Amino acid sequence: MKERLTRLKTIRKIIKNHRIESQDVLLSHLQKEGFEVTQATLSRDLKLLKVGKISDGKSRYVYSLPDEDADRESEQIYIQDFLRGYVSIDFSGNIVVIKTFGGHADSVSAALDQFNMEEVLGTVAGDNCIFACLKEGVSGTEFMAALKKRVPGLEDE
Amino acid sequence: MKERLTRLKTIRKIIKNHRIESQDVLLSHLQKEGFEVTQATLSRDLKLLKVGKISDGKSRYVYSLPDEDADRESEQIYIQDFLRGYVSIDFSGNIVVIKTFGGHADSVSAALDQFNMEEVLGTVAGDNCIFACLKEGVSGTEFMAALKKRVPGLEDE
Amino acid sequence: MKERLTRLKTIRKIIKNHRIESQDVLLSHLQKEGFEVTQATLSRDLKLLKVGKISDGKSRYVYSLPDEDADRESEQIYIQDFLRGYVSIDFSGNIVVIKTFGGHADSVSAALDQFNMEEVLGTVAGDNCIFACLKEGVSGTEFMAALKKRVPGLEDE
Amino acid sequence: MKERLTRLKTIRKIIKNHRIESQDVLLSHLQKEGFEVTQATLSRDLKLLKVGKISDGKSRYVYSLPDEDADRESEQIYIQDFLRGYVSIDFSGNIVVIKTFGGHADSVSAALDQFNMEEVLGTVAGDNCIFACLKEGVSGTEFMAALKKRVPGLEDE
Amino acid sequence: MKERLTRLKTIRKIIKNHRIESQDVLLSHLQKEGFEVTQATLSRDLKLLKVGKISDGKSRYVYSLPDEDADRESEQIYIQDFLRGYVSIDFSGNIVVIKTFGGHADSVSAALDQFNMEEVLGTVAGDNCIFACLKEGVSGTEFMAALKKRVPGLEDE
Amino acid sequence: MKERLTRLKTIRKIIKNHRIESQDVLLSHLQKEGFEVTQATLSRDLKLLKVGKISDGKSRYVYSLPDEDADRESEQIYIQDFLRGYVSIDFSGNIVVIKTFGGHADSVSAALDQFNMEEVLGTVAGDNCIFACLKEGVSGTEFMAALKKRVPGLEDE
Repeated sequence: MKERLTRLKTIRKIIKNHRIESQDVLLSHLQKEGFEVTQATLSRDLKLLKVGKISDGKSRYVYSLPDEDADRESEQIYIQDFLRGYVSIDFSGNIVVIKTFGGHADSVSAALDQFNMEEVLGTVAGDNCIFACLKEGVSGTEFMAALKKRVPGLEDE
Repeated sequence: MKERLTRLKTIRKIIKNHRIESQDVLLSHLQKEGFEVTQATLSRDLKLLKVGKISDGKSRYVYSLPDEDADRESEQIYIQDFLRGYVSIDFSGNIVVIKTFGGHADSVSAALDQFNMEEVLGTVAGDNCIFACLKEGVSGTEFMAALKKRVPGLEDE
Repeated sequence: MKERLTRLKTIRKIIKNHRIESQDVLLSHLQKEGFEVTQATLSRDLKLLKVGKISDGKSRYVYSLPDEDADRESEQIYIQDFLRGYVSIDFSGNIVVIKTFGGHADSVSAALDQFNMEEVLGTVAGDNCIFACLKEGVSGTEFMAALKKRVPGLEDE
Repeated sequence: MKERLTRLKTIRKIIKNHRIESQDVLLSHLQKEGFEVTQATLSRDLKLLKVGKISDGKSRYVYSLPDEDADRESEQIYIQDFLRGYVSIDFSGNIVVIKTFGGHADSVSAALDQFNMEEVLGTVAGDNCIFACLKEGVSGTEFMAALKKRVPGLEDE
Repeated sequence: MKERLTRLKTIRKIIKNHRIESQDVLLSHLQKEGFEVTQATLSRDLKLLKVGKISDGKSRYVYSLPDEDADRESEQIYIQDFLRGYVSIDFSGNIVVIKTFGGHADSVSAALDQFNMEEVLGTVAGDNCIFACLKEGVSGTEFMAALKKRVPGLEDE
Repeated sequence: MKERLTRLKTIRKIIKNHRIESQDVLLSHLQKEGFEVTQATLSRDLKLLKVGKISDGKSRYVYSLPDEDADRESEQIYIQDFLRGYVSIDFSGNIVVIKTFGGHADSVSAALDQFNMEEVLGTVAGDNCIFACLKEGVSGTEFMAALKKRVPGLEDE
């Protein structure tokens, strides 16, 4: 079986180039490309790709990719959420520890998820503290450099 | 100013009938229909309507309504989540108290939100208990009848 | 179909008087008593009754009722948790609002659940505040009187 | 025993007019004013009044009231948190249901707590929904009017 | 003092071979075996061993071990919860990052706890992401192999 | 720009030696000492230092440092919370995994935060488990030794 990353790229390509109206149709496209997957696996793939099913304006519903490149506006909102909420950023091994103002851990964590950084495997938020787990081999310094590209206002403190 | 419900219906109509690519264009459509709203209000309206912004397959991104009528499959999953997780359902005044198995309050609450019942104003989940707040004038019995239509497997206990 | 409360009493009686080793055996006992229920309903009933499945010391496992009357010790611990954590108790309609010290909403809420008060339908905890929903017809004053019986140290403030 | 509200006012007066360095001293002041309370009750009162213990600049620590009147700056931040996070506000009986953008329930709830509105007994936040419980006799409309005084930017939607 | 693991094994043996009705009796058994522990330590040990106190059918209550070997049924439910909820599983160092569908982090985390895997020290769940911490020296690949034994339906993705 | 730690020490010194009534005044003090920071950075610094703004008894409000050395009483309460709630403490790499009794993760986590241990970067609490992330280079054994100094009753288990 080909790897998940290759399959995710293929799904992305199929949805971009065809009008897909059901998981069955998507599965048969995948099969033609050499991927045998279950419905359950496909559901998880669609979740990871943040694929939605949306109206085409004529009472039909088609799968659609999220608007990653274009939607600078909403990115701006998440940057503000991050800057509003965070208090400090520290590292230890593969863990980034972000302290936040009270009640802002969820919104800072949601912002970080939204940035969709390839350096980050996932985040878990408490009440005023977040742990982000870095991908194997990524250092805290590399994460920080990548974060500053996403959040231009982030200061050297 | 016309009421929010009328405005929400109008937004729905505009998105259904036009290819809207930005909030600015949507705002000018709304203005023609007699609604003067701020960008912030429009953002909240789009959130309430669960409007997404999605690819049209040619590198453009347009607003799109969620797939309410067609998507029976995913409704089925939420019904199973509800049946898997709930333990008991009680009422008192405008509050529905749903006890759940440990760790299932969030998934039962998410299912209830997904049912999008007009009887329910909102839900808050603890760890093994959910409160749903009923719309003014809706009785527990009416809620129960409506829920049973959504969750056919729900037993008389 | 007989009511849930009657069925719950019957299940309690069956478990008390017989060595029940599986849900199937329990279901057939229930059938003899005139109750036709599904496995799913039975699971929910056992959860509500806090029934556990435990070793009989000879590698067999039997259903067992929780130790409600005898276990005064652990009740004492929950009373202390309640007294340690709560800050104020107020009422409005069928809702009891209990403010707590930071980080103690969960432990106060768990204590309240443990008291198993018939006046309370359920509780939902935030970070430093709990909502408890009172059974229809129970007043805040009645709840307070019942709570004081459970938590003797509770002061008139 | 005099009522809690009277006692809270008295504590406020004592802390304002004296340099109180310990709970024991505060208890004896209260006693002179006719209040016999335990250390535990006093702790809860201090929590409700948001009293802190702070340095006087000479290595001594005294109780101090929070800065309610003066601190307009930080109020401004909470107003922005509220406006950033909320999606809709509805009522039913004594419950206010506030829907929020994902991950913003905590920050909106913290803002509402910070407004310290006498109409509100307490709030409990889920993931994208908050319940606030209104004081007995306060209507949703009255709450809304009071909220608009606190949050000037709040629109009629 | 002997080590905790040895003591836990001894407690398990005592409860299996005797009818223990109180912590005092259990403490004196432990003493005979050479373990001097406080009541508080014993409470924590009983929690770790998931020991319950249950009716013997004659109004007496005895300590009892959980039904680890026999209760395949309920294991099946947790496997389904895991398969229903998880989206992806990644590793980095000693941290396993499990992404879940919205609202399913708690139920997947509860399932993982229930599997009682010796490779896992503990889990913390956010809203749609779980961190599990692996025992020192256990690799992600070893965890994955162990998990697949517990969750046979888990696919190679 | 000088490092954050130096700046935090300077802020501490300024607040200790002067009556500071506003962020503007504090910023100008900082400037004299050679620190150019924004209002946002200063807010985060004040949060990290747990600085409060409090009444001086004559209707003025001044910044004040928290009472770290003197307030042994409240430290005692947190020690009791920790001892009441924790079940086991394990390590793996830079992660400390603390299991707790149900509903006590938040209170144990709050206690740990309150201890303000320099070995710990931050904590995230689930429902009955806490992860604490240790500073780079700190071992589990070192953490344990430091914790035992803070929590004298902590047993060797």
